[in-house]
Parts: sequence; structure tokens; C-alpha cells
Amino acid sequence: MPQISKKGQTMPSSPIRKLVPFSDAAKSRGIHVYHLNIGQPDIETPKGARDAVKNADIPVIAYTHSAGNLSYRKKLVEYYHSVGIDITPDEILITTGGSEGLLFAFNSCMDPGDEIIIPEPFYANYNGFAVTCGVVVKPIVSTIDNGFALPSIEEFEKLITPKTKAIMVCNPNNPTGYLYSEEEIRQLGEIAKKHDLFLFADEVYREFCYDGVKHFSVMELEGLEQNVVLLDSVSKRYSACGVRTGALITHNKDVYNTAMKFAQARLSPPTYGQILGEAAVSTPKEYFDAVITDYVARRNTVVNGVNAIPGCYVPMPKGAFYCVARLPIDNSDRFCQWMLEEFNYNGETTMMAPATGFYSTKGKGTDEVRISYCLKVEDLKKAVKCLEEALKVYPGRTNK
Amino acid sequence: MPQISKKGQTMPSSPIRKLVPFSDAAKSRGIHVYHLNIGQPDIETPKGARDAVKNADIPVIAYTHSAGNLSYRKKLVEYYHSVGIDITPDEILITTGGSEGLLFAFNSCMDPGDEIIIPEPFYANYNGFAVTCGVVVKPIVSTIDNGFALPSIEEFEKLITPKTKAIMVCNPNNPTGYLYSEEEIRQLGEIAKKHDLFLFADEVYREFCYDGVKHFSVMELEGLEQNVVLLDSVSKRYSACGVRTGALITHNKDVYNTAMKFAQARLSPPTYGQILGEAAVSTPKEYFDAVITDYVARRNTVVNGVNAIPGCYVPMPKGAFYCVARLPIDNSDRFCQWMLEEFNYNGETTMMAPATGFYSTKGKGTDEVRISYCLKVEDLKKAVKCLEEALKVYPGRTNK
Repeated sequence: MPQISKKGQTMPSSPIRKLVPFSDAAKSRGIHVYHLNIGQPDIETPKGARDAVKNADIPVIAYTHSAGNLSYRKKLVEYYHSVGIDITPDEILITTGGSEGLLFAFNSCMDPGDEIIIPEPFYANYNGFAVTCGVVVKPIVSTIDNGFALPSIEEFEKLITPKTKAIMVCNPNNPTGYLYSEEEIRQLGEIAKKHDLFLFADEVYREFCYDGVKHFSVMELEGLEQNVVLLDSVSKRYSACGVRTGALITHNKDVYNTAMKFAQARLSPPTYGQILGEAAVSTPKEYFDAVITDYVARRNTVVNGVNAIPGCYVPMPKGAFYCVARLPIDNSDRFCQWMLEEFNYNGETTMMAPATGFYSTKGKGTDEVRISYCLKVEDLKKAVKCLEEALKVYPGRTNK
Repeated sequence: MPQISKKGQTMPSSPIRKLVPFSDAAKSRGIHVYHLNIGQPDIETPKGARDAVKNADIPVIAYTHSAGNLSYRKKLVEYYHSVGIDITPDEILITTGGSEGLLFAFNSCMDPGDEIIIPEPFYANYNGFAVTCGVVVKPIVSTIDNGFALPSIEEFEKLITPKTKAIMVCNPNNPTGYLYSEEEIRQLGEIAKKHDLFLFADEVYREFCYDGVKHFSVMELEGLEQNVVLLDSVSKRYSACGVRTGALITHNKDVYNTAMKFAQARLSPPTYGQILGEAAVSTPKEYFDAVITDYVARRNTVVNGVNAIPGCYVPMPKGAFYCVARLPIDNSDRFCQWMLEEFNYNGETTMMAPATGFYSTKGKGTDEVRISYCLKVEDLKKAVKCLEEALKVYPGRTNK
């Protein structure tokens, strides 16, 4: 029997999804599971965007341009202009979700063995994409004690070797919810410029900034036009995760043209997702105002609720819809599985993502979980209550 | 300025799409271009399948299961059963087009430096996927003189080294239209079994078999359950190339579970594409009967038409909707570009794909083009007429 690849053996399981069988089993025992493990918002996809798909009358669902429909890319130019980013349609490559954009960026800019520096904890699937491309992630630890702020320039420079090709950030951050300041982004830009590195930024949570803080994009950095590659997606912005519509954006023509070769090999991004994405650009501001109001209430429910549990700590995040909480537990993988397998409170339990999967440094995140606050406030209250009760009886509780 | 990767530099341009700028330029000069370069059928996507998308009322377009919706996988079990293939829903992984299935199969089964044997000419993007994964394609030349039949077992065995991990076939074949016989597929199975290799088969043209010949799938090979990985797609079957819905199918649990890790990293395949794919399974037989009748007429138009041009030769293909034609020309890349840049006949010209892009052996295919017969018979007649007139005046015509 032929054997699978070493790459396949090395490929990590998704920390967001690996507990799904246990959650399915819990449900089959009649237990209600609050899904705080995954960034799947319960917010409605804007009706105008959905209607565009309903009303599309396309007799032949054909391949589109490999870079995506020109009409969509033109529309996106308007969107980006509205958030202070100046680009042209031929600097936008529509991808199948942000995921494919990341793969194109990695493959276009890095070879197997090349290194990429990423502040950790980081979005777990970056690890999977790195393994897929043979790229080595050099994590730079950010800490819960200062709310996961950007590590110092000195810390970055310690990690730079001749193999370093890129730095990557997610802003606002998944999993920490940290929103990098303009000053922090400028610091990153300086490091990238000084060491001639690519600067990849995953800004899919751009709209999700709270407490009046404004998002500062890597695309606004002057003089970094040849270094910056922006990865974006409609998934979170319009609560349309299933359409698989993202984008790779860069002023760097070499990167763009190279990414296009990868894009041509897979022919085109999904037609319906592009139709929805194009229509979604016209979503009225009121939609976002309501969503942001919702998320602030949700964030406050979770963060204040968890901080009120003895032994727990969560920094107050300024963006995205996640937070990382430190819990008084021995092992977050064991704890999260135990909550699905052995625990329930009035027939309910809470599913969270062990933070270990968001670190590539071994041993990190064992007392942390990522909590996604994508549910209604009343559900979040009950989910936090489950967590509180679980910590009272979890056999692996520590005295922290 | 940071430099793009060596991989990116090595990545081939798509031979199907690289002449698009010249075709765009021709159109902007007012010349009508017949697109025989790409397998984009003009056949309508079945109305029932399109209506399923129109009628879907999904308030939140959420991520689906990483392996695709269970309801769709169950429906696919019925479809495969109807074509003589027995599988279960947990042996089907829904992918974003056949392209993603190929990437998952390559990454799950092969490491950089591993070798895969593919009869050439082959679907050009296999080259791109091989470069993406660092895999080495070992081409085994099939020849136009015997209609691109499967090379002998001896020829295959000459290419097998300790690094060989897989054999791959496309059946019916793109670009040649060749339909492998049951005997040929059994021979491939024997080689795979004997040398403990994976056998990948791209069967996206399964429905497109002509002259009463029945398709024999690699999934029907007994004793090869651990070797065979089937790649499939709805793109051609239902003329729905834009929905990006494919599948990776295997009885091999290790391969499936490994592919699932790659699938989880990209979260899920497109929601709308799955809805369309699921509904498309119920497409009535009459749809296919009409389509096959159309394609036979189209094939005959092109093959008989081209064979009637002095110096040209095309074998009569039994499947898919492509053929490879030998032309009396010096260089197929130059010729195809010239037809767009410098030639027109009554304001019209024909775009074809130079066959060079379908070979990985340097120097092969220089006097061959791939012709896709996805257009209406009257258009194909005019397209063939353009080719005939072009060959009369092409400066690089040879005396063959």
C-alpha cells in the first residue's frame, strides 16, 4: 500500500475543527453546544448581496477571468478608496477565500525552507499553509500580559536570518482581537524595508474595530509599495464565509504576475461568490453600524463575564471577534475536549478552541483558549456560565 | 525590493490563457475570435441546478463542512452508483473545482522531489500543480500516429525509479480526446499494484464518450482500493465551470484523512457551488442525450473539417471535447499568436491552444494545436475555415 507524503504527515489538524467529532457526539447525546470555537458569525449576510445571486440569470455558469470579474475588481477599487486605500483593478486578484490568497502569496514570494516571521498566537491555518508550501514559520511570542501588543523591533531583528523572506500580521488579530496601532504598523514597515522583506497583512477584520479606534492598513505605508501584499476576504465583512471570495492585493507587479500564474492554473474563482461580493460592496453603512454595536455588546459580555470568573483573565480586545483567555487549567486541549465529552450544565456546554493550535512554539497556549464571540448576547451569557461551572469541577483545574 | 520565489519563476503560464491578451487585442480591432482554445462549453447549465441556487434561502452564508455538505455527498453516492462506482459519503471530499482536488491529492501523496508519471500530451495545468507541490513530472510520450493510445507497460516501467510515487491519467483525455479502454486501465492498475504506486485519475469528462463506447473507471479496478484516487468535477458534466465544485474520492483512509487536513486549512468549498452540484445530480438523462448528440456533431465537424485541409491530421477522438491536430507549421506558439495578431478572414479568426503547453518534454508539440470543440456547429465550420485560410498564407508554413 503506497504511503502518504511526509508533508501530509506533518500537516497540522485544524485546532478549530479537530474537536468537531466530540461536539457532534455531545449533540447526539442531546446536549446543546455553544460554538465559541469558530469565527462563524450568526449575522445575516446582507440581503442585497444575497439577492444579487438570486437575481443573476446566467444560462452558462462559465469560467470567469482568472483574476476575477473586471466589474467586481472595479467595484472593489471603490470600496478600498472608501477606506483610504488607493489601488487599481489590475492590482487586485480575486481568490477563493482569503485562504487561497495566502497560498498564492506564500508560493509567489517564498520557496521551501524560506522563513516567515509571525507574531504568535496567530491564525492557526497559517501553519497549515506554511507546511503546504514548505515554508518555515518563525514565531515571535506576544503575550497576554500586555494584551498581545506587537513585540519590539529588537525581538523581530533577533529572528531575521538570510532565509527570512517575509513578516506577516493579521490586523485586527485573529485569535487575540488585538488591533495594531498606526505606530506599530509603521514599525513593521520599517523592519520590512530595512531587511528587504515582504510584509503580508491579513486584514479581513478591517471593519471590526471598536471603541472609536481607526484601522491603519499596511497599504497606507509610503515607500513600502514593493513589499506589501494585502490578503482580504468578504467572509467576515459581510458574514458570507461560505461564498469563498477573497483577494490578494499588491502594487508589486512581479508578485501580482506570479500570483496570476498560480491563479490561472486553478482557472477562476467562484462565479456566485464574485456576484455576491460585487453586490455586497453597496451594503449600506447602517448594516455595519448595527453589526459593530452588536459585536461590542458581545465582546463586553464575554470579556467581562470571563474576567469575573475566579482565576481567569482576558485582555479587552479592540478588534475582530475573538479573544484569548487564560484559564486555571492544566491543558487546554484536554479541557476543551472534556467540556464536550464529560461536562454539561443543564444540558448545555461550550466549545472553544484550545490556544495551543495558535502557537507554533511547543508548550505555549496550554492554559489559554480562543473564544469567538459570534453569537447573540443571551447565548454568550449562557456559554460563559457553562465555562464558569465547568471550571468548578474540571479535574485538571490548577490553583492559578 | 524583495524578490519573488524560484517556484514562482518556474511556474508555467497557462497555455490556454497566455494568448488571451492577443485575443483581447484582436477583438478590440473588431475581429471576431472563435474560442477553440478553452474547454468552456456554450451548453446551458441545467435549469434545475441553476434554480436550486435561485431558490436557496440562506440568511447566513456560512462555512460548510470542510469535506462538503453531507447531503451533497449522499447525493453523489447515488450518482456514482449509477455509473458503476461504489463509495460512501465519507470517501468523498468536495473540493473547489477539480483543480483543488489535484492539489490535495498531490500534497497528500507526494513530497517535493517525488516523481509522477503522466502520459503526454496532458492537461497543461498538471504542470502548474506539480511545480506548486515541488513534484517532478516524468512524461511518457504518447503519439498522434496511433491516436494517443496508452504507451506500453514496458515504456512505463522504464521510467519508474525509487522516487516514483504515482501514475496519473485523464480519461477521457484532455487534450487528446483519447478514451482509454478497460484493458488499458487494467494495465495501468497492474503497474500501480506491482510498483506500489498511487494511481490518480482525472475523470471529469466521464459522460463525454462517443460512438457507443463505455467509460471504464479506475474505481472499478479490484484490489486497487488503496492505490486509486479519483478526481472529479461538475464543471464539464453540467457545463458549470464557474461554480468551482469538484471532488476527491478514494477508499484509502490515510489519503482521505490527510486530504482532509488540507481541506480544513482552507475551511470549506463554495456553498452555492455545492447547492448547484447537489441539484445537478437530478439532471434528466435527456439533457445528456442532447448534449452528446451535439458534441458528436461538433467533433465530426472539426475532425473531418481539419482532416480535409491539406497537410493536417487529427485522429478521431472517442471522448471529451478536445482533439490534438498536427498542422503544417513551424511553431505552434508562433502560429496561434499570429492568427490573433496578424490574420483574419472576413473579419474573423480562430484561437487555439499551442500543444507545446501540454507536453513537458521540450520540443514536443511544436507542430500541434489543441482544439476544443465547445461551440455550435455553424461556428466551428467558420472557425475551421479560418484555420484553412490561415494555413494558406502563414509565413511559417512547412511543406508537410
